[in-house]
Amino acid sequence: MHIRKQRLLTPGPTPLYPPALHAMMASDIHHRTEDFRQVYRACLADLKEVMGTAHDVLLFAASGTGAMDAAVSNLFSRGDKVVVCSAGKFGERWAEIAKAYGLEADVLTVPYGEVVTPRQVAEALERQPAAKGVFVQASETSTGAAHDVQGMAAAVAQTGAIFVVDAITGLGTMPLDIDRWGLDVVIGGSQKAFMIPPGLAFMSVSPKAWKLADSATLPHYYFNLKKEKKSGDAGESSWTPATALVLALAEALRYVKRLGMARLIENAQLLALATRAAAAKLGLELFAPGSPGSSVTALKAPAGLDSGVIVKEFRSRFGAIIANGQGSMKGKIFRIAHLGYFDFADLFATIAALEIILNANGHPVPYGAGVAAVQETCAHAMAAPAAV
Amino acid sequence: MHIRKQRLLTPGPTPLYPPALHAMMASDIHHRTEDFRQVYRACLADLKEVMGTAHDVLLFAASGTGAMDAAVSNLFSRGDKVVVCSAGKFGERWAEIAKAYGLEADVLTVPYGEVVTPRQVAEALERQPAAKGVFVQASETSTGAAHDVQGMAAAVAQTGAIFVVDAITGLGTMPLDIDRWGLDVVIGGSQKAFMIPPGLAFMSVSPKAWKLADSATLPHYYFNLKKEKKSGDAGESSWTPATALVLALAEALRYVKRLGMARLIENAQLLALATRAAAAKLGLELFAPGSPGSSVTALKAPAGLDSGVIVKEFRSRFGAIIANGQGSMKGKIFRIAHLGYFDFADLFATIAALEIILNANGHPVPYGAGVAAVQETCAHAMAAPAAV
Repeated sequence: MHIRKQRLLTPGPTPLYPPALHAMMASDIHHRTEDFRQVYRACLADLKEVMGTAHDVLLFAASGTGAMDAAVSNLFSRGDKVVVCSAGKFGERWAEIAKAYGLEADVLTVPYGEVVTPRQVAEALERQPAAKGVFVQASETSTGAAHDVQGMAAAVAQTGAIFVVDAITGLGTMPLDIDRWGLDVVIGGSQKAFMIPPGLAFMSVSPKAWKLADSATLPHYYFNLKKEKKSGDAGESSWTPATALVLALAEALRYVKRLGMARLIENAQLLALATRAAAAKLGLELFAPGSPGSSVTALKAPAGLDSGVIVKEFRSRFGAIIANGQGSMKGKIFRIAHLGYFDFADLFATIAALEIILNANGHPVPYGAGVAAVQETCAHAMAAPAAV
Repeated sequence: MHIRKQRLLTPGPTPLYPPALHAMMASDIHHRTEDFRQVYRACLADLKEVMGTAHDVLLFAASGTGAMDAAVSNLFSRGDKVVVCSAGKFGERWAEIAKAYGLEADVLTVPYGEVVTPRQVAEALERQPAAKGVFVQASETSTGAAHDVQGMAAAVAQTGAIFVVDAITGLGTMPLDIDRWGLDVVIGGSQKAFMIPPGLAFMSVSPKAWKLADSATLPHYYFNLKKEKKSGDAGESSWTPATALVLALAEALRYVKRLGMARLIENAQLLALATRAAAAKLGLELFAPGSPGSSVTALKAPAGLDSGVIVKEFRSRFGAIIANGQGSMKGKIFRIAHLGYFDFADLFATIAALEIILNANGHPVPYGAGVAAVQETCAHAMAAPAAV
């Protein structure tokens, strides 16, 4: 056995930014001290800055699903009519949460790999003018498809409904102009483009959403937006925060600010573009060709080859963890991630490894054909000013 | 300025066990892999072992308050009658959660520093035979008092109510015979006796509690006991786990197992005993003399001295963070923690520092008087077999 470095190449958890990882070693800190309040305040301020919003931003010791729960349990009442856009596993999660809390959801379901259109949203809101909320994934991680968030927002903004966007893999992979487009709630997670381990979720909350909170009656305690806003204004969290992860987030946000959010997004978009070019050269079909996002590219396994074999061989031959399909797509697709701390060198290696695996499993491709496509995208991008 | 090492001497976050802290550096791991399932399974099994229970144990990416919320939102229904024992800030939290979820709570309130008695619980259950639950803190961190959990359990066990114990600072500081005493839900947190940073909560769930879950109707989603049990049985968490903290917990639990839970508890109890002896020598009054717990010892500041001055001088003179009183006790008491990774050498230093601070602030004590009391307890304990 030769050396096989461990590589985490999944769309969350994503590769870790080393200085952020190391920052966790300073966890012998108390959360009710001025030292920690400085870190916490910096996180909230920097999140606002990189998200590009003047809305309040709240932070939770929970994974992203916790913030999704918080949005529903804090802003709605039992029996409220809402519209859910469901284009994959995470759209189904919105529908489940709405059901768990007794909302009356009009679920707009499209087949995996496709997207719900702004027109569908507008039509649903016409059918249901009393709808109080519209839920969507900016990027549906399970299929690699990205929604037209701006188009949907335009439809929602004209109604009394708030627009709740799970941007857990959308942030840092696509432009999201929260305030101008009218994104009332935008949810993110630590283990995605923000390059640190899972366990923190955050969300922005618009004035329109705060107004809805005033009349909302669903019970909640741990996830309490109003309390968390008040605590955050004082540089603290309502409950004991996940200090280690907050220290990591502060460090990662410094890097994202230095890089620039636009550059971080462009990074993911370039890697996605290069991956699609490589896939074309290798005869691999995109799973979501109509609206491919830049957080992750889902590729169909070649006919006759289980995608699980590709995933396993990435692990056994190269020590690399890539993502299989989820749910009914398991065995059919595999997913190459781009969000966060990924660079072209990672992608050269990933595509070269993929070429080896395809050749070894009855799908002959010329060595280097996919890699060359990535190199071309890279060389072209390098004409632009250098990244940090 | 001379060297002042930073020392975290609070009852949570507590001093970190270094190998557990370092284990977080291996966070480039994916939670849906066999590598991680092994770690997760080990955590659940080791938690059961050190908690000494055959009940199910569930783990959450949240702080302890999240697990408190989970116990209420998963096991009760709106309008359920319950009994809340409130002897401090965390008892008040149970009352708040019960209120947030629309339970009808009979709140047994005692002044800070005192405890609710088993007799009071028995009487409340006689008044309210339909009560579905009794809530208590094993150790009320805000006052340093410990409840007679065994006595209360005996009263609760004869009724249809479940006994829900916040043992966030109780675990590892006092015996809790979960199965024999009839503790239906026992809640713990990572940043207490388990020596790692905050962000993980866990709870044991008895068959009696599971039965109540079947008829419970409060809405919930992120905190879902049944789903988490099913996931745990498969070596996974329902949602993305806080992988870094799970890695740390696995390492800390290995140490706790090696040390032995009985020895960990004895460690806290000896340090508490020594602290009380030192306090007596220094003329400092205990805040909860009737039922002092071993997670933390709350001491009254000498007459005319704000406890905040003591806290500040620990920080400015010795780089050490100790706990002030919370809420209405702020300025009146200060708290010396014993739970988790504390040893006698920590306490020698803490009491010596305290003697300096008292002398410098108009409360003269002979240098070494309190330290000698700690040394005597230590020397006596050292006659017993050595700890790990």
